[in-house]
Amino acid sequence: MKNKKVVSEFALLARLRRSFVKAGSRLKVAIGDDTAVFEEKQGRSLLATTDMLVEGVHFTSAHSAFKVGQKAVASNVSDIAAMGGKPLYALVSVGFKKTNTLKYAEELLAGIKKEAAKYKVGIIGGDTVSSKVNTVNITLLGEASGKKYALRSGAKEGDFIIVTGELGNGAAALLNGELYIPKIHTAFAEAAVGAGLIHGMIDISDGLSSELHHLAFESGLGAFIDLQTVPVSAFAKRTAARKNKDAYALALNGGEDYNLLFTAAPANIRKIFKLAKGWTKLTVLGVMRNKKSGVKYSGADGELRLLPRKGYDHFA
Amino acid sequence: MKNKKVVSEFALLARLRRSFVKAGSRLKVAIGDDTAVFEEKQGRSLLATTDMLVEGVHFTSAHSAFKVGQKAVASNVSDIAAMGGKPLYALVSVGFKKTNTLKYAEELLAGIKKEAAKYKVGIIGGDTVSSKVNTVNITLLGEASGKKYALRSGAKEGDFIIVTGELGNGAAALLNGELYIPKIHTAFAEAAVGAGLIHGMIDISDGLSSELHHLAFESGLGAFIDLQTVPVSAFAKRTAARKNKDAYALALNGGEDYNLLFTAAPANIRKIFKLAKGWTKLTVLGVMRNKKSGVKYSGADGELRLLPRKGYDHFA
Repeated sequence: MKNKKVVSEFALLARLRRSFVKAGSRLKVAIGDDTAVFEEKQGRSLLATTDMLVEGVHFTSAHSAFKVGQKAVASNVSDIAAMGGKPLYALVSVGFKKTNTLKYAEELLAGIKKEAAKYKVGIIGGDTVSSKVNTVNITLLGEASGKKYALRSGAKEGDFIIVTGELGNGAAALLNGELYIPKIHTAFAEAAVGAGLIHGMIDISDGLSSELHHLAFESGLGAFIDLQTVPVSAFAKRTAARKNKDAYALALNGGEDYNLLFTAAPANIRKIFKLAKGWTKLTVLGVMRNKKSGVKYSGADGELRLLPRKGYDHFA
Repeated sequence: MKNKKVVSEFALLARLRRSFVKAGSRLKVAIGDDTAVFEEKQGRSLLATTDMLVEGVHFTSAHSAFKVGQKAVASNVSDIAAMGGKPLYALVSVGFKKTNTLKYAEELLAGIKKEAAKYKVGIIGGDTVSSKVNTVNITLLGEASGKKYALRSGAKEGDFIIVTGELGNGAAALLNGELYIPKIHTAFAEAAVGAGLIHGMIDISDGLSSELHHLAFESGLGAFIDLQTVPVSAFAKRTAARKNKDAYALALNGGEDYNLLFTAAPANIRKIFKLAKGWTKLTVLGVMRNKKSGVKYSGADGELRLLPRKGYDHFA
């Protein structure tokens, strides 16, 4: 559900895609959030999201086919988690090159199965075609209880900004030429959203900085984060040191981490941390502010600076 | 939901895909029919299907992008129709070549929108990525009232075999280097299945002969059709004459017609024909027999012959 790595000449597509939206009485959320939401009745909402992974763009022939399959599932599960939903069913389309070995195809499908089983996702449909480039498209359906799903637009001024897990693993894996298979915090998100504890939420597929901008923009707010608090993973630190990179840049701008970025009322923080125990580490990064305040971060020198959507590493 | 035009070395994938099925108490039909069926409760079932179209396999750069978009929607609508369902929501993933013009992308998306509007389908989600080959994947969700959906396995011995519309248009268009955009008989199928008049049903995406074999196999039966009754379209006849081809071969083996092939009790034929008025022409092709009888056709000479799955044109 993200317009990722799109060639610039198709920037207009975002506008075109908006015109696709045709919300009816049963369609509550269409394009623009992590998933679509529909069929809200009898105390249940259905969620739907889709992602296409293409060789040469999202993965290369050097990557393990098993991991490509895993990643295709995980990126969709992440979208459902970002709504606080439970993943249910997947439809899997695969385009295979004729020059693939059968082993390659088997491993890719095994990776899909493994990852689907991890999140109790049933694969209910699919299509297998030949293609000039290996391609995997997964559509994932999920559910949320009643009106209890978290939108990007749900953040409120004064909310604390919280992130699950640690950041920079996706970018570090990329630097090592590997695919990172994230652990998606579905159970925590479902419980916290179900308990009404989360206001706004988004998954970090493109990097913390750009996702924070999305969250702030969709909620009509500004945001402030303290760079010192960003939980940079040990793997990101090691890799950054070895590759002579800035570990914070990996954590802020590196995509594919698939952690959840959400906001909650300060009064509920204790409850949320308690809920997360055993599921995921949580870190408070900052606070949602009014729109005028902009989206800013404080660096090591204590100065407040505008947080670029991407490209933190061009700055102090 | 069909394993179409798959390179032979991946024939094993069909088996692998079977292992994907993980039907739970809510999943009624998984891989193996035209769509998956789940969430059967409160008098409603949800249907889901997916199709991937790839340039160089399902269409070429010479084809109109608008028609490629239309066809991607129509082929999925056809799967929902084959269950007797109503199409509702689509998730659209597009992989675009960097060398495409923006106009190409716009036209493809316009074709998708046009065809979706035709069947009152709301486009609720999507993904846009770059790829080395133009690719369109559509997942279509639909609904059926309660347990009223038609399966491939529903045909009964003694049922009449009926087809909607006329055949050979898809194959004839292909011979002319064009893409055929079928009219899908959703409204008729929904009404007939809703009225409990249809036993077994499948859509004709790969050709009448192979679909009849599917229907017979899944129902554990044989079938007999009279070749003289096959409704060959005028377009198929003209094209066959011009290209020195057998019009019946186009109608029997040519895919992409997307008409519906179904069976019904002889006692209900009058009602069904009455119901179809204004929606579609219907033709009775033959009758379902027991398994031992095999799947056969009678030619111009009156002889009964085994109907090959494909390749009728190799026979008398």
